[in-house]
Amino acid sequence: MTDISNDRGTLTRRGFVAGTLATGAAAAAPAAADAARQQRARKPAGSGSTRRADVVVVGAGFAGLTAARNLRQAGHSVVVVEARDRVGGRVLNHDLGGGHVSERGGTFVGPTQDRLLALASSLKVGTFPTFDDGNNVYVNGSNRMTYSDTGPLGTAPPDPTIIAETAATVAQLDQMATTVPVDAPWEASNAASWETYTLERWVKENSASPNFQLLVPLATRPIFGAEPRELSLLFTLFYIASSGDEQNPGTFERNFDTRGGAQQSRFIGGSQLIALKIAAELGSRVVLGSPVRRIVQGSGGVTVYSDGVTVKAKQAIVAVPPALAARIDYEPILPFQRDQLTQRYGNGTLTKVAAVYDRPFWRDAGLNGSAVDTGGPVSATFDDSPPDSTASRGPGVIFGFVGGDNARSYAAMSPAARRAAVLNQYANFFGSQGLDARAFFETSWCGEQWTRGCPVGIPSNGTLLAYGPWIKQPIGRIHWAGTETSNYWNGYMDGAVRSGERAASEVQGEL
Amino acid sequence: MTDISNDRGTLTRRGFVAGTLATGAAAAAPAAADAARQQRARKPAGSGSTRRADVVVVGAGFAGLTAARNLRQAGHSVVVVEARDRVGGRVLNHDLGGGHVSERGGTFVGPTQDRLLALASSLKVGTFPTFDDGNNVYVNGSNRMTYSDTGPLGTAPPDPTIIAETAATVAQLDQMATTVPVDAPWEASNAASWETYTLERWVKENSASPNFQLLVPLATRPIFGAEPRELSLLFTLFYIASSGDEQNPGTFERNFDTRGGAQQSRFIGGSQLIALKIAAELGSRVVLGSPVRRIVQGSGGVTVYSDGVTVKAKQAIVAVPPALAARIDYEPILPFQRDQLTQRYGNGTLTKVAAVYDRPFWRDAGLNGSAVDTGGPVSATFDDSPPDSTASRGPGVIFGFVGGDNARSYAAMSPAARRAAVLNQYANFFGSQGLDARAFFETSWCGEQWTRGCPVGIPSNGTLLAYGPWIKQPIGRIHWAGTETSNYWNGYMDGAVRSGERAASEVQGEL
Repeated sequence: MTDISNDRGTLTRRGFVAGTLATGAAAAAPAAADAARQQRARKPAGSGSTRRADVVVVGAGFAGLTAARNLRQAGHSVVVVEARDRVGGRVLNHDLGGGHVSERGGTFVGPTQDRLLALASSLKVGTFPTFDDGNNVYVNGSNRMTYSDTGPLGTAPPDPTIIAETAATVAQLDQMATTVPVDAPWEASNAASWETYTLERWVKENSASPNFQLLVPLATRPIFGAEPRELSLLFTLFYIASSGDEQNPGTFERNFDTRGGAQQSRFIGGSQLIALKIAAELGSRVVLGSPVRRIVQGSGGVTVYSDGVTVKAKQAIVAVPPALAARIDYEPILPFQRDQLTQRYGNGTLTKVAAVYDRPFWRDAGLNGSAVDTGGPVSATFDDSPPDSTASRGPGVIFGFVGGDNARSYAAMSPAARRAAVLNQYANFFGSQGLDARAFFETSWCGEQWTRGCPVGIPSNGTLLAYGPWIKQPIGRIHWAGTETSNYWNGYMDGAVRSGERAASEVQGEL
Repeated sequence: MTDISNDRGTLTRRGFVAGTLATGAAAAAPAAADAARQQRARKPAGSGSTRRADVVVVGAGFAGLTAARNLRQAGHSVVVVEARDRVGGRVLNHDLGGGHVSERGGTFVGPTQDRLLALASSLKVGTFPTFDDGNNVYVNGSNRMTYSDTGPLGTAPPDPTIIAETAATVAQLDQMATTVPVDAPWEASNAASWETYTLERWVKENSASPNFQLLVPLATRPIFGAEPRELSLLFTLFYIASSGDEQNPGTFERNFDTRGGAQQSRFIGGSQLIALKIAAELGSRVVLGSPVRRIVQGSGGVTVYSDGVTVKAKQAIVAVPPALAARIDYEPILPFQRDQLTQRYGNGTLTKVAAVYDRPFWRDAGLNGSAVDTGGPVSATFDDSPPDSTASRGPGVIFGFVGGDNARSYAAMSPAARRAAVLNQYANFFGSQGLDARAFFETSWCGEQWTRGCPVGIPSNGTLLAYGPWIKQPIGRIHWAGTETSNYWNGYMDGAVRSGERAASEVQGEL
């Protein structure tokens, strides 16, 4: 099985042929499904039946589904309107055959992500440890080394030429992050100064080794889908502060680590199973394939117009990324502060790739499947094999993050070249068997019509300071959810769940 | 006459009342007209009559109108679809009564803006010099000085404490800008490094005097509607390079100056007259009050669906700012590179205020009506009196730019407090008669539904490098215009005209 059907060809300036517009890795298999659905569902906005509920939720990702579930459990009626033909948002299982699944989007769960863990537990979705026995691999040009993530740097590579600087810089960022209030990062005493720095500028001015500086994009590409030059220092510090909970201050390492970090565990049945189970509970309260086009609010209530259904409600929760929320037509128009926030909050640039092997052969060599590379296209890999796979029993799956500039150059390559580039990296990491993938699939979240970038929305320099509070400030009857609105684990599934819980509580106060 | 009807009240978290959603200065009189029109025109997207043309143009600002005019003159059929009830986009006359007009948006024209001048000339719209006899005023805290703009610094204040640093920094920026190709700023040899700096960071690291550093936002607020922390250094340098033409390299001073700069002249009858005259030529080819919702392209052509009309054409020109272009639903979806560009290209934050007096009293004191202030709300003023006004014959008009953080804090004030704050500044600049305005009006372009920020779209750090070419790269049958796509005078009316001319040429090659 080779699934690289997500390539729709290359754009040429004149040679337009229907279906060839999305360049490079722009369109994944789910995008194709979206497009097909769109053809079927093509109706003027606001057509279809009219439904009534206490609360209408826009978006059936983890945030919207959590909000709807909580409201229903509290006795309120809800309708969830979703553009796609499926639930889960940025979380999507991929069928490997034989009862096995892999994940095309959000995958992991780790310590302090308690709201996601509690939700999974209540839905009887179990977890299992990400495979982490053995050594990690680090590649920096021609330098390849293996190391254990049980050391003080965790998953960060203990390259002897930069180990001191890595430890010191991470400690410095973590310390700075302790001064950033997760509910109001713009109130940090140094907020105005930190908004003048991109992360890249700050690193250049606060480190000496070019070799260390190469390590920084290696982290930001998977974590943000961005280059360090695209990140405000204040937002970066907020993101670090956000990687924890009320009892445990956030740390950079928790973002990056498997052992003790955000990649520690996986969900049995795949992470999307959580969304699928909530959707099953909600039943016909979830309307699929129905993009929301317009939200009209007034003293009598709020009406959501979508391609397939119109919903009249008392309150609305919009649970989509800021860049997509901006594309809904609001009446009356939203305050300019909210609108300008959404103009400055573009989604990251992340493609996830995965190779499937007959078995997890890397385990033979004492490798755990985790690798990082200052080159590309892949910056970081993880063992994504099913829980019952062993060194001798497959399948074995390695997925990799291709983010930032790497994702952009990757999109310009042919499908065959993309596959070859990834498998060559895997062979360098894990041995020549890395070339012998029996399947290869990739998901460019930027090309997904109803996501348009992953893993998270990123405010530009100055945006948190200018408009930060508007990310979750209700506007009349409209409330905002989505991982971008979360104080903790912003950008992660856990943040989405927290935001859904918060929005549901907020709305209950208005009903 | 006191026209501050553009305030719709203050948002409260719970107290939603219809019509009170737009906060502070969010909604101007034209926004109210937009809203009224929207109520009348409320129909499902794609309803209304169907028209056919060689080219459909989205947006009747200077770019779209110029493109349509040129195409028509070349013998092609066109239809222009405009969301508002008027033409002109970010250019709008304001009737002062007695046959006099002032401008709520783009106003001036100056040397090297030859395409705008040629267009005006062909439409028999004349120009006259901006009033510039006498001294400018400079305020920095309690320090107030007057000076002549005939000196080497032009309009920049020759504050003796910072004059050397001002001259040196401007010269350095101008020199750096000479290395930025206006058609491809991302190809500058230092582009990658300059994208790591915000303008504020660069200034802090390349100047010594805090007093000089206070001067920088004084320039960026009127020019960009932004704080220096919101501007990529690369974009700033591109903007400087863009402020010229093929024969005359761009300079920072040309942005800021009246004498010899972009504020040198004004249009008789007001700048919007240019748009009104083109619209009169085009007649029923311009469809007003009809927001475009969806653009569908295929091998057979391109169809634009708007609230009032559907247009089938061979080619389309979308001539609206990137942040608004992002809100149109494209089928097939656009390549992710274009989409992510538009997610990272928010409009500036600019409110224009104007006070009307019985006569231009400041001329008595040998002042020319130009003032700059490191405080606020107003950063810079100009004499905007009609051409036949004299010191003894009115009306006298002073308009001011309130941009960036000043625009945000201004929006949080009450209408009465806003007026008082501006007039107090004017009194400090020009004398106590500044308090005796017979009329006061203001326009918050951020609150305009079909603009959502002024004067120009601003790419975040890293965006030009990542996605720069996509600002004007045609996608199938869709071509892009608007001042943000212009090589020269990007952000100005002249840039809009140039972009319309370029898009028309581009489309003619496809017809």
